[in-house]
Amino acid sequence: ARSYNITLLPGDGIGPEVVAVAKDVLSFAGALEGVELRFQEKLVGGSALDATGVPLPDETLDEAKGSDAVLLGAIGGYKWDTNEKHLKPETGLLQLRAGLGVFANLRPAAVLPQLVDASTLKKEVAEGVDIMVVRELTGGIYFGKPRGFGTNDKGDDIGFNTEVYSASEIDRIARVAFEVARKRRGKLCSVDKANVLEASMLWRKKVTALASEFPDIELSHMYVDNAAMQLVRNPKQFDTIVTNNIFGDILSDEASMITGSIGMLPSASVGESGPGLFEPIHGSAPDIAGQDKANPLATILSAAMLLRYGLGEENAARRIEAAVTETLNHGFRTGDIYSPGTTLVGCKRMGEEVLKTV
Amino acid sequence: ARSYNITLLPGDGIGPEVVAVAKDVLSFAGALEGVELRFQEKLVGGSALDATGVPLPDETLDEAKGSDAVLLGAIGGYKWDTNEKHLKPETGLLQLRAGLGVFANLRPAAVLPQLVDASTLKKEVAEGVDIMVVRELTGGIYFGKPRGFGTNDKGDDIGFNTEVYSASEIDRIARVAFEVARKRRGKLCSVDKANVLEASMLWRKKVTALASEFPDIELSHMYVDNAAMQLVRNPKQFDTIVTNNIFGDILSDEASMITGSIGMLPSASVGESGPGLFEPIHGSAPDIAGQDKANPLATILSAAMLLRYGLGEENAARRIEAAVTETLNHGFRTGDIYSPGTTLVGCKRMGEEVLKTV
Ligand SMILES: CC(C)[C@H](C(=O)O)[C@@H](O)C(=O)O
Ligand SMILES: CC(C)[C@H](C(=O)O)[C@@H](O)C(=O)O
Repeated sequence: ARSYNITLLPGDGIGPEVVAVAKDVLSFAGALEGVELRFQEKLVGGSALDATGVPLPDETLDEAKGSDAVLLGAIGGYKWDTNEKHLKPETGLLQLRAGLGVFANLRPAAVLPQLVDASTLKKEVAEGVDIMVVRELTGGIYFGKPRGFGTNDKGDDIGFNTEVYSASEIDRIARVAFEVARKRRGKLCSVDKANVLEASMLWRKKVTALASEFPDIELSHMYVDNAAMQLVRNPKQFDTIVTNNIFGDILSDEASMITGSIGMLPSASVGESGPGLFEPIHGSAPDIAGQDKANPLATILSAAMLLRYGLGEENAARRIEAAVTETLNHGFRTGDIYSPGTTLVGCKRMGEEVLKTV
Repeated sequence: ARSYNITLLPGDGIGPEVVAVAKDVLSFAGALEGVELRFQEKLVGGSALDATGVPLPDETLDEAKGSDAVLLGAIGGYKWDTNEKHLKPETGLLQLRAGLGVFANLRPAAVLPQLVDASTLKKEVAEGVDIMVVRELTGGIYFGKPRGFGTNDKGDDIGFNTEVYSASEIDRIARVAFEVARKRRGKLCSVDKANVLEASMLWRKKVTALASEFPDIELSHMYVDNAAMQLVRNPKQFDTIVTNNIFGDILSDEASMITGSIGMLPSASVGESGPGLFEPIHGSAPDIAGQDKANPLATILSAAMLLRYGLGEENAARRIEAAVTETLNHGFRTGDIYSPGTTLVGCKRMGEEVLKTV
C-alpha cells in the first residue's frame, strides 16, 4: 500500500475542531483507496506561542518539511492581536509558508448550486461562478526588504515595507497559473497595478512574455482596482486569476465572499518540490471556538486538495469531494450556510455525515 | 458677488463630454446663488501627452494651483497603455495630486433608492448602503522611494516599490476621516494590514492614538482582506472608512461597484490649503467616447462637491444634488443605469434635464 506522512497543524480557535473532523475523513477516504496515512500533530500560531514562546517552533517546521503534506486549521485570535510582530500568530504562518517554499497558493471560489442563495449577490450574478485565484505566496510586500520602522529626514517616525518581485519569481508563479488555467477553461487574467507600480510593470512584462509558451490560453490583464469592481459586477467573466501576494490576499477573500459560503472554501499552497500546505481559507473564528458550531467542510475539501495536489491521489480526492456534495444534497448544513428547509448540524455531526458517504 | 476661478481639466475619453455638461450645471447653480464662476480649460493626461509630450504640462499645474478649485473629467486610454511610466496619462494625474498636495480623497458610495436595482447585490443587502471612503492620496506605495528596476544578488531582474507612511501623514488623513465621520453617522473603520506590514502597524498606532481627541466617534480596525469581504457580505455595517492609498484605490472601487452605478459617483480630493481636485470616480471609457452615451451625473455631483468642499458654497451644492435627485425621479437614465420603464437619454440631454431642475 502507498503510505504517506501527514503533518497536522490544528492551530487556534476552531482550527482543532475542523482538523479533527477532516483527519477522520482523510484517513477513511485514503484507506478505501489503499492509501495509508500516518499523522503527526504539531503546534503553530497562538497555541505555539502560549506553549513555546514562538509562533512556529523549529520542531513544527522540521516535522512539516520532512512530511509528505501539511494540513493546517487556522491561526490567530484577539488574545495575540496586539503582540509585537515576531510574536504574532500570523508571523508563524508566514514563516511556515516561507520555510516550505510554497510560493503558489491556489484558492478556488466556486458557487455550489446547493448554496447559491448563501451569496449576497443576485442569483443570476452568483450562479455558476467558478474562479481559481492563483496567489503568489512567498514574495512581494509580505517578505520584501528593507522593512521596519525609522525616522525620515524631518525627524518624523515612519513605518515601511518593500514590494519587490524578481523575474524568476514572477515566471514560476505565472507558469503555475497558466498550467492551472489549462486544466480549467483556458482563460487567465493577470491582475496588477502596472499603471503605477514598477513591481507590477515587471510582473506584466514577464507574464506577457510567458504567454507564447501557452498559445492555447487566453491571457488578459486587469488593474487591481478594476478587478475588485469586476468581481462584484460580473464574477462569471473570470476563470483563473493570477496575482501578487497582497492583491491575492484581498481579491481571493473578496472572491470567496461572492460565493457566500467561505466556510466551504479550501486552499492549496505548493512549491517547486517538497510538501504542500493545505488549509481552509476561513480564519480561526475565536467567537465560536469549542462550541461544535464550525463548518468543517472547508478543511475537509482542503484534505481533498491535499490528496490531489499534495499526494497525487486523485481517486481519494474525488471520493471526498463527492461525499461533500452528497452530504449537502442530503440537506445537512452548519449554521453559516443554514437556510430554512435544511437540517442544522454541528461540526462533528457534519463530519459523520460526510464519513457515511465517502 | 462672490467670484471664483475654476480650472477645468477635461482629460481623455468621455472626460470632455461630461465636463462640458457639468460646467454648465455648475455655472448655472452658482449664478442662482449669486456666485460667479470663471473657467479656464487646460490639458492633462493622454491629450496633454499628444499635444505637448508630457502628461501634466507646467502650464496646467500652475493654472490649477492658482485657481480656487479644479474639476477633472477622466484620463487614460488604450492608446497610451504601453507607454513608459513618465509618459503615462496616469503619471500626469499622480503629479497633479502631488502638486496640489491633495492628500485626502473622499469617495462616497451610496445606493440611491431610485437605483437600488442597478446593484448586483440583493436588494436587502444593497438598500440603504451609504459609505464614505477616505483614502490617503499623496503617500504610500504610489509615491514611496526607493522605487524602480534593478537586479538582485542572483543577477535576476527586479521591480520594486516602497510602501511608507510617516506619523504626520497618518495623523493628518486620520484627522480628516474623524471629522468626516463626525458629520456622518459617527462610525470610523480604519483598514490596514497590521498583522503583516510595519507601515500598517504605525498606521494603526497613530489612528488609535488620535481617537482620544474624538471621543464621540466609534473607531474600529479591520484587515484589508476582511474589509474586501465585508463590503460584499454586509456593506451596511460601514459608515466612514479610512485607509492608505493603495487599499483605498481597491476598496473604494469595490464599494462603488456595490452601488451598481459607478457612473453616478463623485469624489473630492483636498489638502491642507489651496485648491481641491474634484473628479468622477469612473474612468475615461474610451469605447464610448464621443458618442454622447456617457453618464454626466458623476461629474455633475463632483461639481457639487467642488462647491461644498472646495468653495464652501453649500447652497449651490445642494441645488445641484437636489436637481440630480429630481432628474432621476423624473425617470431619466443614461445607458449605464437604464432599466425598463425609465427614459433612456444621452449625456447632453441628461445635462439639460438637470439644468431644468437646478
Ligand atoms: C493571516 C494572514 C497573515 C494571512 C495572509 O495575509 O496571507 C491570511 O489573511 C491569508 O490570506 O491566508
Ligand atoms: C488612474 C490611476 C492612477 C488612479 C489611482 O490608482 O489612483 C485611479 O485608479 C483612481 O483611483 O483615481
